[in-house]
Amino acid sequence: MRPQLQEMALSLLPSPEESASRPELRHFYQMLRDYPERGGKGLRSELLLLSARAHGLQEGGPGWERALWLAAALELFQNWVLIHDDIVDDSDERRGKPALHKLHGVSLALNAGDALHAYMWAAVHRAGLDAGMDEFLNMIHRTAEGQHLDVSWVEHGEWDLQPQDYLEMVRLKTGYYTIVTPLRLGALAADQTPHPDFGAAGLSLGAAFQIRDDVLNLTGDPAKYGKEIGGDLLEGKRTLVALHWLGAASETRRQTFLEQMRLARTEKDLAVIAELLDWLRESDSLTYAHEVATQEAERGLTLLRGALNTAPDQAAAGELLGLMDTLIRRDA
Amino acid sequence: MRPQLQEMALSLLPSPEESASRPELRHFYQMLRDYPERGGKGLRSELLLLSARAHGLQEGGPGWERALWLAAALELFQNWVLIHDDIVDDSDERRGKPALHKLHGVSLALNAGDALHAYMWAAVHRAGLDAGMDEFLNMIHRTAEGQHLDVSWVEHGEWDLQPQDYLEMVRLKTGYYTIVTPLRLGALAADQTPHPDFGAAGLSLGAAFQIRDDVLNLTGDPAKYGKEIGGDLLEGKRTLVALHWLGAASETRRQTFLEQMRLARTEKDLAVIAELLDWLRESDSLTYAHEVATQEAERGLTLLRGALNTAPDQAAAGELLGLMDTLIRRDA
Repeated sequence: MRPQLQEMALSLLPSPEESASRPELRHFYQMLRDYPERGGKGLRSELLLLSARAHGLQEGGPGWERALWLAAALELFQNWVLIHDDIVDDSDERRGKPALHKLHGVSLALNAGDALHAYMWAAVHRAGLDAGMDEFLNMIHRTAEGQHLDVSWVEHGEWDLQPQDYLEMVRLKTGYYTIVTPLRLGALAADQTPHPDFGAAGLSLGAAFQIRDDVLNLTGDPAKYGKEIGGDLLEGKRTLVALHWLGAASETRRQTFLEQMRLARTEKDLAVIAELLDWLRESDSLTYAHEVATQEAERGLTLLRGALNTAPDQAAAGELLGLMDTLIRRDA
Repeated sequence: MRPQLQEMALSLLPSPEESASRPELRHFYQMLRDYPERGGKGLRSELLLLSARAHGLQEGGPGWERALWLAAALELFQNWVLIHDDIVDDSDERRGKPALHKLHGVSLALNAGDALHAYMWAAVHRAGLDAGMDEFLNMIHRTAEGQHLDVSWVEHGEWDLQPQDYLEMVRLKTGYYTIVTPLRLGALAADQTPHPDFGAAGLSLGAAFQIRDDVLNLTGDPAKYGKEIGGDLLEGKRTLVALHWLGAASETRRQTFLEQMRLARTEKDLAVIAELLDWLRESDSLTYAHEVATQEAERGLTLLRGALNTAPDQAAAGELLGLMDTLIRRDA
């Protein structure tokens, strides 16, 4: 992430020095700053700023600060969502350090995520763009719908799902906040009406992005990937690879898989999980997932190229398409 | 709560009919509407509307809708906070029905609380009052600070606390959202500058309100109170009564108390909890808590009376003081 954006996000939060009177409150302020201080790649904020430039905004020129505040708000969104997601998934790590609830317990982490959520709206407000409120509201609503699908399948032990169900879930859970909303906010920051194809383009590209992420979770280089390889299996996540594999697996293997998925994370047999990982890796389901990701990516890129065809700054539009291309081909 | 406010809050939320395509999403929308549909007393929204009238706004007149949207936002605030608080306290019931996470699990309830939080901001935005954003941000920040104190004492088994620590915690956790912010928002809705004494007045009245609530939790009439009598002991809450009692109890009783408080809710011995309840009820700590509540209430009412002395609508100001008086003397 750009250091400038991180500084802007952090400038909204109280600093631990502000309340020397109570050590508990200093601790609270440190918790609020923890995830934002860990940084992150800043892909979504970069995409927003590229979209703003493609729509005619000049870096450092009039309106640029508006785009920066929206970008900072997007980073704060990701931070509070990750705090709560890490609780729900009971993740061990985040960006190479223990997850917030592992450091301070679920209750305090939940509360810190709520406060950080409020500061996200402060950043949106700082941008001073009325339409920004609606964009963020829609993004949160869609992302929460996706999260609801994902989590309710886990809670209800639902594995009777088709690839189409998976695609619908990831479009909601990942597509809006990763691609659609950054593209639209960039246009709005530049006082332009977002192209209607940003929706369909972003949802396809978001799905491609998430499928690659799921594949990396099975096959990635641990040193590069930054999350636990096989973590999705431990968390019992529905992925395109797993759903496809289940459709073709032998009844014995299928039962072994479902048996492990019925168990809580801590109850799972790590030797069996390693075996499942091998089965998935050796299957043609990886190839299938790659193909779907490629189709979604090509569909999305074609739509996006068309939508940016008449954008005022074609050089920035080219950069944006380049970033998108890297994003969906990434190996980490 | 006024039916009109409930309707306004619900009108912002998606209706289950909106997404006939997926049963999971209908389920999500029902979860969002559940707590708002359960209603509630609407004390805080009523206080806000009385403050708006006292500051010169006429019911149904110009600017009234602005006050209504802020009041609806305040009710939505309480709803999302209660969803998350019920998770943290592992409460069984809310307003006579099972708590949301008891019905749908922690993960889905956490997610629904997050989405409802976003809809609270939509209501704030709908009011169209720039200063409203800052008020809500400050309210959430202070309430989260209070929650952090309360929860961190529970998490760290901290009982070495003075009445002053308790008062600081409840001012933050209860005082802002129950009294200070409603009073200020009413003034702002009427285009008036909130009186500087609303802060100190509201924090005293908020503390009085919470101390009465803690006492009712020990001695209330179960039929009227609506929450479990003795629930605070089961949840290991720090209350003024408990802290005062600990300061005077015999070493044996003190150890029995602390031993139970170290246990998780489900591990507590209900017979011993019933005994603790008797000890607290028979002690002079109830009298002490009543006295502190009365002092705080009188201090707050005096400040508030002074602050409303020059308010344009003295009849409404009188009603407001009357509501406040009932609130801090309530027996349910």
